Amino acid sequence: MVVKSQIKFIKSLQQKKYRNQYGMFIAEGVKTVQELLNSRIEPHKIFSTIPDLPLAEGRLVETISETDLKKISSLKNPNKVLGIFKIPQPYKVDQDDWILALDDVRDPGNLGTVIRLCDWFGIQHLVCSKNTVDCFNPKVLQATMGSITRVNIVYTDLVEFLTKTGLPVYGTFMDGDGIYSTELPKKGILVMGNESNGISNKIENLVDSRVSIPQPAFRTGRYSSQATESLNVATATAIFLNEIRRP
Amino acid sequence: MVVKSQIKFIKSLQQKKYRNQYGMFIAEGVKTVQELLNSRIEPHKIFSTIPDLPLAEGRLVETISETDLKKISSLKNPNKVLGIFKIPQPYKVDQDDWILALDDVRDPGNLGTVIRLCDWFGIQHLVCSKNTVDCFNPKVLQATMGSITRVNIVYTDLVEFLTKTGLPVYGTFMDGDGIYSTELPKKGILVMGNESNGISNKIENLVDSRVSIPQPAFRTGRYSSQATESLNVATATAIFLNEIRRP
Repeated sequence: MVVKSQIKFIKSLQQKKYRNQYGMFIAEGVKTVQELLNSRIEPHKIFSTIPDLPLAEGRLVETISETDLKKISSLKNPNKVLGIFKIPQPYKVDQDDWILALDDVRDPGNLGTVIRLCDWFGIQHLVCSKNTVDCFNPKVLQATMGSITRVNIVYTDLVEFLTKTGLPVYGTFMDGDGIYSTELPKKGILVMGNESNGISNKIENLVDSRVSIPQPAFRTGRYSSQATESLNVATATAIFLNEIRRP
Repeated sequence: MVVKSQIKFIKSLQQKKYRNQYGMFIAEGVKTVQELLNSRIEPHKIFSTIPDLPLAEGRLVETISETDLKKISSLKNPNKVLGIFKIPQPYKVDQDDWILALDDVRDPGNLGTVIRLCDWFGIQHLVCSKNTVDCFNPKVLQATMGSITRVNIVYTDLVEFLTKTGLPVYGTFMDGDGIYSTELPKKGILVMGNESNGISNKIENLVDSRVSIPQPAFRTGRYSSQATESLNVATATAIFLNEIRRP
């Protein structure tokens, strides 16, 4: 049975303030919880409507009813399992490969998609400005599809980080040099900006190379004399990481 | 003033059934409504809290209060304007360039992002299976950021369409040939599958070439022995279209 104080505690973890205060976060759904149980991230408590949840043996699992799960879940349609996990300490960021940096990305779906892209493309370190949406936000976690266990995510002062690095810094701008004709080094930092404002002025000052995805010359269709101004930050990240990693 | 029957009519357009019955759809927000007013899509009626909405002169505009806008809007935070537009007749699909086809893509955000990608990469025709989410769904419209006015979207029997085409059909599969080493022709059809199940069997039978995005060999990070199994359909589409269009 789930008691009132537990409900209050679990619900509070939907807010960043309480996640930081308790050093814990919640994850929902069989697949996500199992990926977390199978990682270095430490479980605090698991509530499951499945009596023998694989990987969870002896790990503070409590079997609860569907009704009780509804009381603690943040989902409209709760998915069998809710886990409370300890926020892991990030690793030190090595500078021996490409690193992705985010300058105030605010949309949880975008951050989740970007984390999944880092996992796919083997980008081990994702460095986020302090105003980037929290990666332990339930909506981010849901969008990462478990990739959060395989990417080292660090929140830091991005100005300080970029000032200290010895790596070349690539910033993405509408008027940057075309990425298809840019020779990319073996390692560097790729900075993606905020959804509305792009890269901020203080970060722009620290960028060594301005890059962009060129608009195909034939892209203005017959149905309009205009065309879209920009790509969503997650799809633009997909294209830049593809260019960095393609043979 | 907005009367009760109007509220009922406008709210009904949030459902596909009524959009098809009336041949109309709703769009919200200054930017989206203005992009629609600036396109071939015909307005039926515009409700605006801005007295002199640019581009809307003499086009059945009614200035309403914020309170009235709240009554007809489907958004938590209504954004000044709501327009009712007539669903346009799709154009005939020419077969002289790359065409994107979707086999039952269900998530509105994914379809919206894919439409925006078609706009960016100059893909003029998007052919959707009948079970693909409706492009006039308010969530899709919001995600397209106006690109819906610049891409010809056709819902059709995809089996019939692919049977009749003379173009080579490329289908995306986990076990397909690597896209980086595949020589792509000047024109063809790229098929993307459903979020959970990928391309259906009946469409798979019509595919000439199976392609995939190769997983970088070094992508298994030091933080886990596993790695993500797949990319989201919208980010995968971004990468495939980039490969098709890059010089």
